[in-house]
Amino acid sequence: MSRTLADLGEFGLIRLLQDRLPNGKDVLLGPGDDAAIVHAIDGRVVATTDMLVEGRHFRRDWSEAYDIGRKAAAQNLADVAAMGARPTALLVALAAPPDLEVDWALGLADGLRDECERTDASVAGGDLVRGPSIVISVTALGSLDGRPPVTRAGAKAGDVIAVCGRLGWSAAGLAVLGRGFRSPRVVVEAHRRPEPPYDAGPEAATLGATAMIDVSDGLVGDLGHIAKASDVVLDLDTKSLEIAEPLQAVAAAIGVDPLEFVLTGGEDHALAATFPSEVNLPERWRVIGRVAAPTEEQLQGVTINGEKSETAGHDHFR
Amino acid sequence: MSRTLADLGEFGLIRLLQDRLPNGKDVLLGPGDDAAIVHAIDGRVVATTDMLVEGRHFRRDWSEAYDIGRKAAAQNLADVAAMGARPTALLVALAAPPDLEVDWALGLADGLRDECERTDASVAGGDLVRGPSIVISVTALGSLDGRPPVTRAGAKAGDVIAVCGRLGWSAAGLAVLGRGFRSPRVVVEAHRRPEPPYDAGPEAATLGATAMIDVSDGLVGDLGHIAKASDVVLDLDTKSLEIAEPLQAVAAAIGVDPLEFVLTGGEDHALAATFPSEVNLPERWRVIGRVAAPTEEQLQGVTINGEKSETAGHDHFR
Repeated sequence: MSRTLADLGEFGLIRLLQDRLPNGKDVLLGPGDDAAIVHAIDGRVVATTDMLVEGRHFRRDWSEAYDIGRKAAAQNLADVAAMGARPTALLVALAAPPDLEVDWALGLADGLRDECERTDASVAGGDLVRGPSIVISVTALGSLDGRPPVTRAGAKAGDVIAVCGRLGWSAAGLAVLGRGFRSPRVVVEAHRRPEPPYDAGPEAATLGATAMIDVSDGLVGDLGHIAKASDVVLDLDTKSLEIAEPLQAVAAAIGVDPLEFVLTGGEDHALAATFPSEVNLPERWRVIGRVAAPTEEQLQGVTINGEKSETAGHDHFR
Repeated sequence: MSRTLADLGEFGLIRLLQDRLPNGKDVLLGPGDDAAIVHAIDGRVVATTDMLVEGRHFRRDWSEAYDIGRKAAAQNLADVAAMGARPTALLVALAAPPDLEVDWALGLADGLRDECERTDASVAGGDLVRGPSIVISVTALGSLDGRPPVTRAGAKAGDVIAVCGRLGWSAAGLAVLGRGFRSPRVVVEAHRRPEPPYDAGPEAATLGATAMIDVSDGLVGDLGHIAKASDVVLDLDTKSLEIAEPLQAVAAAIGVDPLEFVLTGGEDHALAATFPSEVNLPERWRVIGRVAAPTEEQLQGVTINGEKSETAGHDHFR
C-alpha cells in the first residue's frame, strides 16, 4: 500500500518536498524559515494569488497530480506575465486529507517545479495543512525589471488588439473529457497542461503594450475587463481568429460552433494586449481586432464584428 | 433573509470588498488587475503564506468572521515580523460555499483590514472561488528596509533566549471554549484575536538578534526549530516564565498544570529570539533561558531547567 500523509507526518513530507524544490536564482532564502526572501531588484514586487479547489478546478480522475501542479503554477505565473513582469517565485499552500498518498503530493510538487522552470522562477515557500478535501493556493511573485507595469487600464481608441498563445484548446479538451472521451489527445493535453507564453509578457511591455490581460476566463469576458478599465470598446474581427483543426474536429463531433471555444474558452492563459497601431508586432502576436472610443450606442465593452456581444465571463458563484 | 454569495455573484462581492480595503502606503497597484504591485524598497521582498481551514483552524460557532480575519492576518504578519521585517501587504484567497452570507465575507475583510492597520500593511489583492467549505489562504509580504534577515539559524552558545508577547493565553482560551464555556473572557478574547507585537520583530533585528521565530505551534516546539537550524541547545528557565493570573485560574478549573499552556500553547504569535548576552533588552523582551552548545549527552534541542524535554510541536497530519 502507498504511504499516506498521515504515515509520513507533516515534517517528513516537508523534508521530501524541499528536496524536490531547488531554489532559483531570485530566491535569497527558500523554504524552512518563517518566511522566504526573494529578489525584487527594482524596488517593487508584482504579486498575485489564485486558489484551486478539487472538484471545481481539477478532478483527480481527469488529471495527474503532476499536471495539476503544472496548471496551478501556470495560471499564477501567467498573471505575473500579464503585468509585463518576469516571474521570480511561487509560494504554495496545500490543504489535504491525511489519507492522501504521499506520491500525489510529490507529483504536485514536481509539476509546480517544472512549470516554474519554464520561466526561471522557483517555489520559495509554502504551507501544508490538513483539510477535508484538496485545496491548492498559489501566490506568484515577479519583477518588472525597471519597466512600468502594463495594467488593464491603458487601451486607447485606435490601438490594435493582439493575442499570443492558444485560445479555446483547453475548453475543447474539457468538452471532450466531460463526455467521457480522451481524444483528440492534443486538446486533452492542452486542458491538462496549458502552456502560457510567459516571455511574451515582458516582450509586450517592451513593445509598448497599452493594456494586457491573461485570458483565464474566456477571450470576450477577459477583454471586457480591459474595455471597462480603459473605458473603450474592443471590437473583435472573427475572420482573424484562426480555428485550429483539432478544435474544428471536436466542435463537429459534439455539434457546437468551434468559434465558441475560441471566444469563451478559458484556462489556456494566452496573453491578450492592446498596442498602438504603428507597433511592429512579432509573428506570435496575432492582431484580432481594434480599439474604439465608446459612443452613445455602444458603451465600453466588447463587440464582435461590430455587433454587441452578450458573452459574459465566468462568475464563480452563479 | 441575508444575502448570500450566490445572490450577489463574484464580481458584486469583489466590488464590495474593494470598497472596504483601502490601499496602504506600500501598495503601488491594489486589487483589480492581474496582479498587485507592492514596494520592496531595498530590492528584496519577505514573503510567507499560511492557510486556514474551517473546522480545523477556526469554527464559525466559536469566532465571528471579523475575528477570523484578524487571526488569519495576524499569523501571517507575525511570520514577516519574525524575520525582522516590516509587513507591507497581504494577498488573500478565499474558497467559500455559494450559500455563505455576504455579511460573513465582509466581516472577514474588515478583520483582515483592521489587523493590517496595526502594522501599516494593507490587502493588495486576492482571489475568490467556490468551494465546499471555507478555506482562507493568506500571503504576507514585508520589507527588511536594508537590514539583514533574522533567520532561525544564527543562535550561538552563550546567547540569551528572550520572548516578547503572550504565551499560553490562546491555548487557555481554546481549552475554555472546548469545554463549552465563554470565560474568563480575557483568554477567550486572546484565542479569538491574538495580538502579535509586530514592531518587536524589526526592533529585535536592530538590537542584534541572532535568531528569531514566531511562536505559532508552542514555545518548546518552535524553539526546537531554532535549536535544530542553529545546531544548539536552548535551555528554558521555567522560573522566569511568568504565568498570568487568568491562565492559573483556567488551569485550576480544568485540573492541568498552567505551565503546559505557556510551554506548549500555540497561536499567540509571540516572538521568541536569541540575543548576544551583552545586549541591553527593552523591558518587553523577557529573558527566559540560555543557549548552550550541544554535547554528547544533549544534542541539539530544547531543555527545560537543564532537563531533556519530550514536548513536541504540532504535526498537522498526525
